[in-house]
Amino acid sequence: MRMYDLIEKKKLGEELSTEEIYHIVNGYTNGEIPDYQISALLMAIYFKGMNVRERYDLTMAMRDSGDILDLSSIDGVKIDKHSTGGVGDKVTLVLGPIIASIGVPVAKMSGRGLGHTGGTIDKLEAFPGFNVSLSEDDFIKQVNDIKIAVTGQSKNLAPADKKLYALRDVTATVDEISLITGSIMSKKLAAGTDAIVLDVTVGDGAFMKNTKDALELAKSMVDIGKRADKKIAAILTNMDEPLGFAVGNNLEVIEAINALKGNGPEDLMEVVYELGSQMIVFSEIEKDKAKARKLMEDAVSSGKAFDKFVEFIEAQGGDSSYALDIDKFQPAKYKIPVEAKEDGYVHAMKAESYGLASMSLGGGRETFDDVIDMSVGIVLNKKVGDVVKKGEAVCYVYANDEDKAKRAIEMINNATVISPEKCDHMKLIIDIVE
Amino acid sequence: MRMYDLIEKKKLGEELSTEEIYHIVNGYTNGEIPDYQISALLMAIYFKGMNVRERYDLTMAMRDSGDILDLSSIDGVKIDKHSTGGVGDKVTLVLGPIIASIGVPVAKMSGRGLGHTGGTIDKLEAFPGFNVSLSEDDFIKQVNDIKIAVTGQSKNLAPADKKLYALRDVTATVDEISLITGSIMSKKLAAGTDAIVLDVTVGDGAFMKNTKDALELAKSMVDIGKRADKKIAAILTNMDEPLGFAVGNNLEVIEAINALKGNGPEDLMEVVYELGSQMIVFSEIEKDKAKARKLMEDAVSSGKAFDKFVEFIEAQGGDSSYALDIDKFQPAKYKIPVEAKEDGYVHAMKAESYGLASMSLGGGRETFDDVIDMSVGIVLNKKVGDVVKKGEAVCYVYANDEDKAKRAIEMINNATVISPEKCDHMKLIIDIVE
Repeated sequence: MRMYDLIEKKKLGEELSTEEIYHIVNGYTNGEIPDYQISALLMAIYFKGMNVRERYDLTMAMRDSGDILDLSSIDGVKIDKHSTGGVGDKVTLVLGPIIASIGVPVAKMSGRGLGHTGGTIDKLEAFPGFNVSLSEDDFIKQVNDIKIAVTGQSKNLAPADKKLYALRDVTATVDEISLITGSIMSKKLAAGTDAIVLDVTVGDGAFMKNTKDALELAKSMVDIGKRADKKIAAILTNMDEPLGFAVGNNLEVIEAINALKGNGPEDLMEVVYELGSQMIVFSEIEKDKAKARKLMEDAVSSGKAFDKFVEFIEAQGGDSSYALDIDKFQPAKYKIPVEAKEDGYVHAMKAESYGLASMSLGGGRETFDDVIDMSVGIVLNKKVGDVVKKGEAVCYVYANDEDKAKRAIEMINNATVISPEKCDHMKLIIDIVE
Repeated sequence: MRMYDLIEKKKLGEELSTEEIYHIVNGYTNGEIPDYQISALLMAIYFKGMNVRERYDLTMAMRDSGDILDLSSIDGVKIDKHSTGGVGDKVTLVLGPIIASIGVPVAKMSGRGLGHTGGTIDKLEAFPGFNVSLSEDDFIKQVNDIKIAVTGQSKNLAPADKKLYALRDVTATVDEISLITGSIMSKKLAAGTDAIVLDVTVGDGAFMKNTKDALELAKSMVDIGKRADKKIAAILTNMDEPLGFAVGNNLEVIEAINALKGNGPEDLMEVVYELGSQMIVFSEIEKDKAKARKLMEDAVSSGKAFDKFVEFIEAQGGDSSYALDIDKFQPAKYKIPVEAKEDGYVHAMKAESYGLASMSLGGGRETFDDVIDMSVGIVLNKKVGDVVKKGEAVCYVYANDEDKAKRAIEMINNATVISPEKCDHMKLIIDIVE
């Protein structure tokens, strides 16, 4: 099998066979096929796409390129939740303890943030002592004991994806539906759960900028999950403005703690309940989605969910006193209001720019070597659809450096649209693909 | 300027600026831009193309990547002739001496053959002692003295093309009109002539398989040549069957010698006269193409052209006694007729297969390290449109190895179509682009 012929085949819009796709993925992972042939193929795929059968084979070949986790010693239906990334996205921190308190096992591999979106692992490190590198045995034991554990990725899951993603990232071939599907789903399938709930974010701060593309991606991933015999659903959620009010590591953790205590922002809770009720249904603890949602609301109002969060932080060696007293989190040096320049309604708070503003304050990474400043970020005082008066704070910038604050404020001003016409609040749940 | 952004730009079908194209070509030539980004860009160009301005910039950037020959010390209008490659193509060997004998300076850089098409330099080495590596001074002096010199490429002409071609060759991005234009025209412009006549071959044995594509390529190259202030024309010639009767090195040289003596195959001479008369017009020796053709015919019939050939072989140290007595060429061990399996008309003698059959006999290279067997090849006994009787020879295979002969005969049989319906001879000159 010559790689040349496979590039030519895809270039002409033909279908690659299962054997051919495995040859490509394995050959690239073990270094037999050079970067320059793969990048040409990736660009041909960008233009000619892959059908569902090819996507499935690509996903499975990438999954099979490394370790596949065996979670069979965890009791119950194991469910993974994955978000395609957003700004102010602290859903896992809130959702995990709620459903764990109901009895759904939460065995979550999570990542660090890069670019304008944050990562759950980074946020959990807000708790001094929190261990993000559990051994496989400890991870499984903790899930069986308290129903929730979150760890960074230690096993070699889907190394083909790591290599392919790095190449796509420098050859302008990231934004293609089959390649995105393969990248996400190969890791999800390698993570070994029985069910997967996908949060496909849509809008300015998301990878998918419009509903059409997001829906196509959601359907593609659900198709592949079903072919692989997984229970799977995808929820399309709005990411035109940041989720909740807080953007930045400590600030988001504080918001998550408040949410678990029953004081969560409406939009954040809507996403948490929608994803969580789907997960509970998959777990077979409750068949009816509305009843599942009620279970979650009760877990929050009764304090069960928050108690589970404290238990979880302690189980992984974290100092849970921070959860009990949020004033213990190191505050940023400056808290500066960003004031509305006119009366009117908030029409846009562009999520990507807010994320980039938080990153520019030191709250995010440009490369994986960067160190995050946990205390900086942004807290919204308004959301899209709110009335605002001239001079009133649209949001607050939390900064440790005045120059960085100035730059962030400028970015926020450019990303915020206020005008006299009335404007609706944003609809959070855009669509559901099952 | 980030290469990523340039790939993305072309991927979206946008136009690359002059500065961007030079950045790409220079960055790749000097090793600053990696193969994998260039191959992704090449594939994006395959799908999105380049407009005439971009093609011109690409050509000039590639030309400027290396040496540009200075032929100003050669008297008269310098004209290059280039063929996009064919089977049995000995045009240069016949054409060069004819027009040189009329006074047109022929300063020809030529190459070796690869794959199913032959190279002029290889064929000239049929004459023992022939020197294919002239110094620049000797080359120019010889053209001024006797009006003709042919040498291999010694200067570093268009190194960007060498590197890009090698990459295109392994990433299935050879067959794109702007890239082909840039590749051919950058070398032609670096060769420093005042005028260029292109033989764009079309058909089974050619790089361009159909007239539409060939015409597009011809127009593209002529456009670029004109933008670069060159006199330029392209002749589209048929390459569905081999040109002339002989395929293989010595066999083609013998046919060329016979042609110069006035016994050339009709189709070969048609191409020679068409290209040559265009070159004479460009040289300003004769303005009228029909009269230019008459000059050529006279040069052949008077023996002037053949004498020039002998003079040329001797000037470069070759043993011209071979030209005077073609029996001196080492014959192949076997001459085997390939017999017609039925009565009828010859409908096809697929040129590529004939070329590959000759190569399989040892007459061509798969890689540049292969050594050519000069004596082997094929001599046609029929051409498309001829009547043939069952058992009559369609062609003769000249071989030094019986197994190789068997394989070649099988290839020839598969590539030869005979059927009872009448069939016309092929039209040689398909179109002219000026």
